Amino acid sequence: MNPPGLEDLLTLLRFPSVSTSSAHRDDTRACALWLQNRLTTLGLTADLHETPGHPILVAKNKHLPGRRTVLLYGHYDVQPAEPLNEWLTPAFEPTIRDGRIYCRGATDNKGQLMAHVQGLTETLAQHSDLPVNLTILFEGEEEIGSPNLKPFLEAHRDLLACDVVAISDTGMVAPGVGTFTYGLRGIACLEAKVRGPSIDLHSGIFGGAIANPCTMAARLAASLHDPEGRVLIPGFYDDVRPLQDWERTAWQTLGDGDAETLALTGSPALFGEPGYTERERRWARPTAEVNGIGGGYQGEGSKTVIGKEAFIKLSFRLVPDQDPAKILAAAEAHLRAQLPPVVSLDIHLGHTGQPYLMDPHSTLGQAAQRALTKTFGGQIALIREGGSIPIVQAFADVLHAPTPLLGLALPDCQAHAPNENFPIENFIAGTRLNQYLLEELA
Amino acid sequence: MNPPGLEDLLTLLRFPSVSTSSAHRDDTRACALWLQNRLTTLGLTADLHETPGHPILVAKNKHLPGRRTVLLYGHYDVQPAEPLNEWLTPAFEPTIRDGRIYCRGATDNKGQLMAHVQGLTETLAQHSDLPVNLTILFEGEEEIGSPNLKPFLEAHRDLLACDVVAISDTGMVAPGVGTFTYGLRGIACLEAKVRGPSIDLHSGIFGGAIANPCTMAARLAASLHDPEGRVLIPGFYDDVRPLQDWERTAWQTLGDGDAETLALTGSPALFGEPGYTERERRWARPTAEVNGIGGGYQGEGSKTVIGKEAFIKLSFRLVPDQDPAKILAAAEAHLRAQLPPVVSLDIHLGHTGQPYLMDPHSTLGQAAQRALTKTFGGQIALIREGGSIPIVQAFADVLHAPTPLLGLALPDCQAHAPNENFPIENFIAGTRLNQYLLEELA
Repeated sequence: MNPPGLEDLLTLLRFPSVSTSSAHRDDTRACALWLQNRLTTLGLTADLHETPGHPILVAKNKHLPGRRTVLLYGHYDVQPAEPLNEWLTPAFEPTIRDGRIYCRGATDNKGQLMAHVQGLTETLAQHSDLPVNLTILFEGEEEIGSPNLKPFLEAHRDLLACDVVAISDTGMVAPGVGTFTYGLRGIACLEAKVRGPSIDLHSGIFGGAIANPCTMAARLAASLHDPEGRVLIPGFYDDVRPLQDWERTAWQTLGDGDAETLALTGSPALFGEPGYTERERRWARPTAEVNGIGGGYQGEGSKTVIGKEAFIKLSFRLVPDQDPAKILAAAEAHLRAQLPPVVSLDIHLGHTGQPYLMDPHSTLGQAAQRALTKTFGGQIALIREGGSIPIVQAFADVLHAPTPLLGLALPDCQAHAPNENFPIENFIAGTRLNQYLLEELA
Repeated sequence: MNPPGLEDLLTLLRFPSVSTSSAHRDDTRACALWLQNRLTTLGLTADLHETPGHPILVAKNKHLPGRRTVLLYGHYDVQPAEPLNEWLTPAFEPTIRDGRIYCRGATDNKGQLMAHVQGLTETLAQHSDLPVNLTILFEGEEEIGSPNLKPFLEAHRDLLACDVVAISDTGMVAPGVGTFTYGLRGIACLEAKVRGPSIDLHSGIFGGAIANPCTMAARLAASLHDPEGRVLIPGFYDDVRPLQDWERTAWQTLGDGDAETLALTGSPALFGEPGYTERERRWARPTAEVNGIGGGYQGEGSKTVIGKEAFIKLSFRLVPDQDPAKILAAAEAHLRAQLPPVVSLDIHLGHTGQPYLMDPHSTLGQAAQRALTKTFGGQIALIREGGSIPIVQAFADVLHAPTPLLGLALPDCQAHAPNENFPIENFIAGTRLNQYLLEELA
């Protein structure tokens, strides 16, 4: 017997709402329309707001004077599902195995989003109202950096005014351990394309006399780090806020992070910036990563060509007080300095998001901790996370509201990777968490 | 009105005989069968010999005592046609524009091969016999390094015994200039695959704590050259035979190579080993080229992953007296020394071919020069080429026969690249060259 709300989640997962892909534009819109209808059936007023990209869904109960206003945020878009051949079951056909739902978006973010919707459903069924004024804000562009959400916040400050923002789009340190994320890394993306000859060339006929774009792109990627893993872009670490002692101590109590990361990733070894633990590197230190590199022949066997162009796709994960625009400018200058003028270099600056940090010991932070304790019992983990939710900083900047992040994803939920999944028990716990959270925040 | 034999060439071009692709295995065989039939109609005995790969076609006229025996070599396989979207007309549908035939294989090698077949056709129509004992040897694996041809030569020394080998699979320095290629570079190929995590990872959650295979693959590629373009593999240049003074002088009379290569390639600038001219770099100096690099996200937009693996495909062009096996061993050792044990490295050694050099002033060399003069008139260009035809060295080793290379390709025929083409006038000239060559060699 499926728990209440599970069928709705499976329906939501079947929409291939890949926001970065123009081919999935209609699917993404259909996903938003389905959610609008779902919220309307709860008695909420739900409006779809058009943007230059994917629509934003805003829904409310009847706001009464004298109640706290809570804004509940989630996103209905997902990452691309590629490489498709590594999925054990189809990426957009949710499949339940061993108590987990496997589907692109299962954990990031549709499973967590629908746990909140189901919590609201149950509270409304019991009490006919919620203990707070609720504003729901679901967007469809989180996986491409939420380019239209901050302008939307700025244009609708009154519509979205709130005391606190609640989001479940982060992780739990272990099954059953309530986890409060008080910091996130920011992000800045960049794509560099190296162009050489105007056509692909025979590497025998021309090899040796002109620059090879693959080699030059490799030089760019290889120039980003020293052999030990420190980022070599001049000024990259200038604005990094040092870790606090209480954080380093608290994180050491969370178990063996090294063993966990080795097991989760299947990597042969850990590797990273010297002087920091594995958790500190992931949660509180900035990175430069090559998300993709490509050029020349990609197929089976060999082809003796010099490809006319090659690319690298980079993303930087940032921590307080790094500024994404400043980092991108420094990265661009660094990359341009690497190459002699024997190839041309096009640099496209991509999306950015500020890093985020709140005080978990504030009044609202304590209310969120109580809701976690009621839901999960035991000790609450206070952590930061390595991922980026740029909009969290936007809520702080525009709505002046703090955002306790109460995640429901487990470390092996494979967000962004093949065989993404979400445990059904976390869906049920998330339903309860929503109910306790609104009570505590009230 | 099409010249005689052109329709046959167009038919041959329509076979997508891509030897490296298992998907085109049947097409490649069909191509061989068509050629077998075409040679049979000339009154030759034509037999298809099976190999572990693609078949070898051997055809002969009636060999008479007291005549020179000429072995005519060509290959019916072609390079992959990718990237398909850069072809102006379909890669395997021959299309004539401005006097040139556009199709994969038009110049390399089907156009040149069929010019010889048409020359034989016309001589036989006029004289009912050829002036020499002819053995035709057409293979289907030249573009993948002819793995089965040398064993075939060794197993059929009597069948293939000859005084001289004739091949048209090289270039002309300019339209109408008869060109004798007396040297070729050898080749050695290698693919390296870097493997890190067992799955693609979220670069926010895990970035900073493990090694990124894309970064490590880029390090490998970037480690191959110094900033000026010299190869950094230890021992790489040890066995390189220096250029002769007469060659350097002769090549300087061939016109402005720098301007020609810039125009042909569309590169922003020349780039290569200091101390050598552009032609010397291409014809008589060894290279290391990255033919392909890939890892992580390859699609539109951004995807914030750490890919689980990345690859580089390398080829080395070699000159006398470098040994391909020794170079591959040195390259493998160099690559393994670049990476810390935080990723695993699989190295697959690919096909190899010896470099080749003959004396263009020998008796047979002079006969070949006379055939070129009769066909084209004017001064003959004596050159080396940068490409590799490993089998030429095998003919020297096994059959003890020299191989004058009398090419028909122009520098802008785009061999191995999109929009490969072959001028119809070169097809006609090649038909005459075949007839004069057999007369002179007789």
